[in-house]
Amino acid sequence: MSHDLLLRNVRPMGGPTTDVLIRAGRIAGLGSGLEAPGIAVEDGGGALMIPGLVEAHTHLDKSFWGMGWRPHRAGPTVLDKIEAERQLRATGQIDPARQSARLLMQALRMGTTHIRTHVDVDDVGRLAGLEGVLATRADHADVMDVEIVAFPQSGILTRPGVAALMEDALRMGAEVVGGLDPCAIDRDPKGHLDVVFGLAERFGRPVDIHLHEGGSMGAFSMELILERTRALGLQGQVTVSHAFCLGDPDAALVNPLLEAMAALDVAVATTAPASRPVPAVARLRALGIRVCAGSDGVRDSWNPYGTADMLERAMLVGLRNNFRRDDELELALQVCTHGGASVLRLGDYGLEPGCNADIVLLGAETPAEAVAAHPPRCLVVKRGLVVARNGEALSKTP
Amino acid sequence: MSHDLLLRNVRPMGGPTTDVLIRAGRIAGLGSGLEAPGIAVEDGGGALMIPGLVEAHTHLDKSFWGMGWRPHRAGPTVLDKIEAERQLRATGQIDPARQSARLLMQALRMGTTHIRTHVDVDDVGRLAGLEGVLATRADHADVMDVEIVAFPQSGILTRPGVAALMEDALRMGAEVVGGLDPCAIDRDPKGHLDVVFGLAERFGRPVDIHLHEGGSMGAFSMELILERTRALGLQGQVTVSHAFCLGDPDAALVNPLLEAMAALDVAVATTAPASRPVPAVARLRALGIRVCAGSDGVRDSWNPYGTADMLERAMLVGLRNNFRRDDELELALQVCTHGGASVLRLGDYGLEPGCNADIVLLGAETPAEAVAAHPPRCLVVKRGLVVARNGEALSKTP
Repeated sequence: MSHDLLLRNVRPMGGPTTDVLIRAGRIAGLGSGLEAPGIAVEDGGGALMIPGLVEAHTHLDKSFWGMGWRPHRAGPTVLDKIEAERQLRATGQIDPARQSARLLMQALRMGTTHIRTHVDVDDVGRLAGLEGVLATRADHADVMDVEIVAFPQSGILTRPGVAALMEDALRMGAEVVGGLDPCAIDRDPKGHLDVVFGLAERFGRPVDIHLHEGGSMGAFSMELILERTRALGLQGQVTVSHAFCLGDPDAALVNPLLEAMAALDVAVATTAPASRPVPAVARLRALGIRVCAGSDGVRDSWNPYGTADMLERAMLVGLRNNFRRDDELELALQVCTHGGASVLRLGDYGLEPGCNADIVLLGAETPAEAVAAHPPRCLVVKRGLVVARNGEALSKTP
Repeated sequence: MSHDLLLRNVRPMGGPTTDVLIRAGRIAGLGSGLEAPGIAVEDGGGALMIPGLVEAHTHLDKSFWGMGWRPHRAGPTVLDKIEAERQLRATGQIDPARQSARLLMQALRMGTTHIRTHVDVDDVGRLAGLEGVLATRADHADVMDVEIVAFPQSGILTRPGVAALMEDALRMGAEVVGGLDPCAIDRDPKGHLDVVFGLAERFGRPVDIHLHEGGSMGAFSMELILERTRALGLQGQVTVSHAFCLGDPDAALVNPLLEAMAALDVAVATTAPASRPVPAVARLRALGIRVCAGSDGVRDSWNPYGTADMLERAMLVGLRNNFRRDDELELALQVCTHGGASVLRLGDYGLEPGCNADIVLLGAETPAEAVAAHPPRCLVVKRGLVVARNGEALSKTP
């Protein structure tokens, strides 16, 4: 679907007030006093206008959103959380289609217009999560763009049949090959990464690997990822999510990794957790490394927090990185907008004529204030269609 | 002023639905189907009921709240920020009465019912900040309890006349003696603390000292604070704000401090910043150390962030401390409620019969969900008076 719309009195990125004409779902022009007889008009009342927020790392398939409060049960380690989730998955309480739709609609009302979601592929749930998210994606294609990572959450080599299920997932519609913690989960980093990069090569797909591993183990895994990126010519096609090892205080460990990542155009997805070491966003950007951000799990068996609000995430990125100046706060917003768009390889993203009209209006004076205050979204527009108003989605949630 | 009110259909701390009768500003009783002919009734609709939030560390006098967006100008160090603020103060742009009232009303609509505010006393602003906050406190006495710390923001010994101004501040109505970074600012830790504790002794007042100093310097300052607490018999009367040195990874440095703090009942006020080392809240509480939390500056020359929302702060405390289980999230809420009440020595605080009716209603299933979701406040009640509804204060802001 595509739409025509005239937005009056908006301030793109906090600049002067203007009107924005949208034709067939794209920004046709910006200027004062535009006229377009017969098409719908929305008066922004001087609101700040930013491009649609990009949720570049989440897990739509397994959120508890809308299922009532569920106390966190898992132990502290990644392996604890995997095991707790496998037990939960076996009970069949989480309907991936319903839950992904609920979380998608929550993200939409907070101004997200594009999502990269990691969807679990394992020996318990098999492809049920993917089937659910594919259904949600089809049902919501007019209001949200969703990219799917086939994510071997429980490991590949130690779980019977998962490598074949990953192949099936890519054939069914997942676009990206996922992976996680090559040392810590499968206990066989070469074997794990050979499957992940083997699939990427055979299917011609990008890669997005969860790397929680810290310190020298994480650095070793990162080296293996970088070696394969170089060997397979996957420059610009690989994202490392979390990349906590890049937050290690040992510069001798971190600097060579950063240099290699910059040279190979390997991107970083951060959730900027406050309790873990994190990659320094400004440092990454100064080296030219693409950085995107995400909510990670929202109210799932991993994590009780989250509202799927990528402006709140921008604030958390800012707080974690000690960003205070306007250019720093704008960088936090950049990773939640254009940074995500570059990692998701979105064509026609932005506020220029010709771009898809994916737009958020909100009550803030400047982009920096939007990050600091993360106020409610006045209007969310997806390819020219008004999809949320005053913080509420306009189509019904499941 | 005191008030009568019947709250129907509320769930104190997430327990069973009940009614709450308030007489003369205090909780008179809880029970199902209470009747009180002739008094005002509010139907909570099953909302979660928690005690009023306690903002135990903020700076009401110098916020930019409501003054439009102001880009952050200061350099990265505490000394940079002090200098930038002194220059700003000299311009007279910040009206402490107006600004403290604006921020107080923002805190009120987010459910805060008690505030401890540090108010700058220095050689530039002298007592202007205090005079402003005293006026605001008097004007808002029916809707907010405010405790004032006389805070020598620019130092004591190196700034002419500040020691005498601190005395004046205590005579004028500040209740608590403040201090900061005994080594780093005045460069004379003995001299700084002798003034601070000298005033505490002479005036019989509690102490609340900002301690940003990290590592062994912070530990040294903490030792000096603990020595004076013991020598003057100020057990239970001293709070250390920030206390970043307690977040040092060196257990040999931290553990003796924690043991002494527990023995001397020295409390900690944390803002749980994501980019600094922080005291581990669960560890402090396990040792019996009282812990409260605060927003710190909200949109001032130190910091562009903040919404004065102590439930968002509870979330930040939880995220910083990697709290996930319900008992952990409840602890994050505890430091923003009862923890603050204990540090501020509030009598009659809580949800029991006889307590002051300082109450917040919100749409959450459990206290843990309130922390994770920090949803809008349905109703805020101060000593039986409804002061905010659906996120909006009922009296006008200046």
